[in-house]
Amino acid sequence: MLPSALKKLIDELSRLPGIGPKTAQRLAMHLLRSPHQRIKPLGEALLSLKDGLAFCEECWHVTETSPCGICNDPAREKHQLCVVEDVLDVLAIEKTGKYKGLYHVLHGVLSPIDGISAEQLKISELFSRIDKHPEIKEIVLATNPSLEGEATALYINKHLNGRNIKISRIARGLPIGSDLEYADAATLGKALLNRTDY
Amino acid sequence: MLPSALKKLIDELSRLPGIGPKTAQRLAMHLLRSPHQRIKPLGEALLSLKDGLAFCEECWHVTETSPCGICNDPAREKHQLCVVEDVLDVLAIEKTGKYKGLYHVLHGVLSPIDGISAEQLKISELFSRIDKHPEIKEIVLATNPSLEGEATALYINKHLNGRNIKISRIARGLPIGSDLEYADAATLGKALLNRTDY
Repeated sequence: MLPSALKKLIDELSRLPGIGPKTAQRLAMHLLRSPHQRIKPLGEALLSLKDGLAFCEECWHVTETSPCGICNDPAREKHQLCVVEDVLDVLAIEKTGKYKGLYHVLHGVLSPIDGISAEQLKISELFSRIDKHPEIKEIVLATNPSLEGEATALYINKHLNGRNIKISRIARGLPIGSDLEYADAATLGKALLNRTDY
Repeated sequence: MLPSALKKLIDELSRLPGIGPKTAQRLAMHLLRSPHQRIKPLGEALLSLKDGLAFCEECWHVTETSPCGICNDPAREKHQLCVVEDVLDVLAIEKTGKYKGLYHVLHGVLSPIDGISAEQLKISELFSRIDKHPEIKEIVLATNPSLEGEATALYINKHLNGRNIKISRIARGLPIGSDLEYADAATLGKALLNRTDY
């Protein structure tokens, strides 16, 4: 019923995560109604996405040059390493303005159910990076406070134990602006256990 | 913090309706992790979307050839015309398999609040089409059962009144599988008013 060009676009859009066939149809119709000069930049951005884009061979953040801007920045603290799951986590932490050290992006978390083991992540790269750079004195484990994130943090902590490195885990507790009454028991329990001196 | 190619893609994605900056980031990261041969078809589909795609000059459905496949199909009933708001509505009605006539796509509805009047829609094209084709004997008004859809149906009905044409409106009532208890008063009222003989 639909022209093949439109059908192809709907097919390709519905392959994206979180976009079902109905949303894909709606997006395609929106694009069809848009002038060509509005669609062109998106098409070009997709086709040229991979050109000149790579992962930093130090921290595995996405970058145009390796080492990346953060690793190359002389103003960053070289003795701190923040271990995150994902490139977007680097952005989230950078936005806070509370961290001035370097990063290490794991590109995932340990998840035996999904068949993801340490080999598929940048964990061995983390260990060899620590070996190579004795100036690294603190590891901040900033994986998500989920089951897999905690397991990954635990795994890294276990492997680094015994070295002369301070290992910390980001605080888990009540989010700012939340309500004690509606907090889940695990979060509230953590908030009580990890209470800070006032 | 992000390479410009990635930032451009996030910007372009977040311009799509229903896709906020966070979803755009997530989609872009998914695309970045996908191999190039998975991204390429989407980019190409976008760039070539408008090539050879047009609107049928009879019914204003999207098509590669004008008149479109439906208008050209000798098996379709030429005396019936189903008036819909959108190209996707044609697909929805075709899927039912209950309609064998022709279509007329208005490309919108009358909406004074949004500044959309009859001139911006394919309404005058509908009237001249009916004038040109005296074989058209029935108009099925299948605009959405929303305020604007009802107003548009009313407007078309008023303008076609007095001609020797049967004008019908799609039934409004309880959807199949729904629960009387949870139906809104307007729908239930319509369902009672337009009850059919058993």
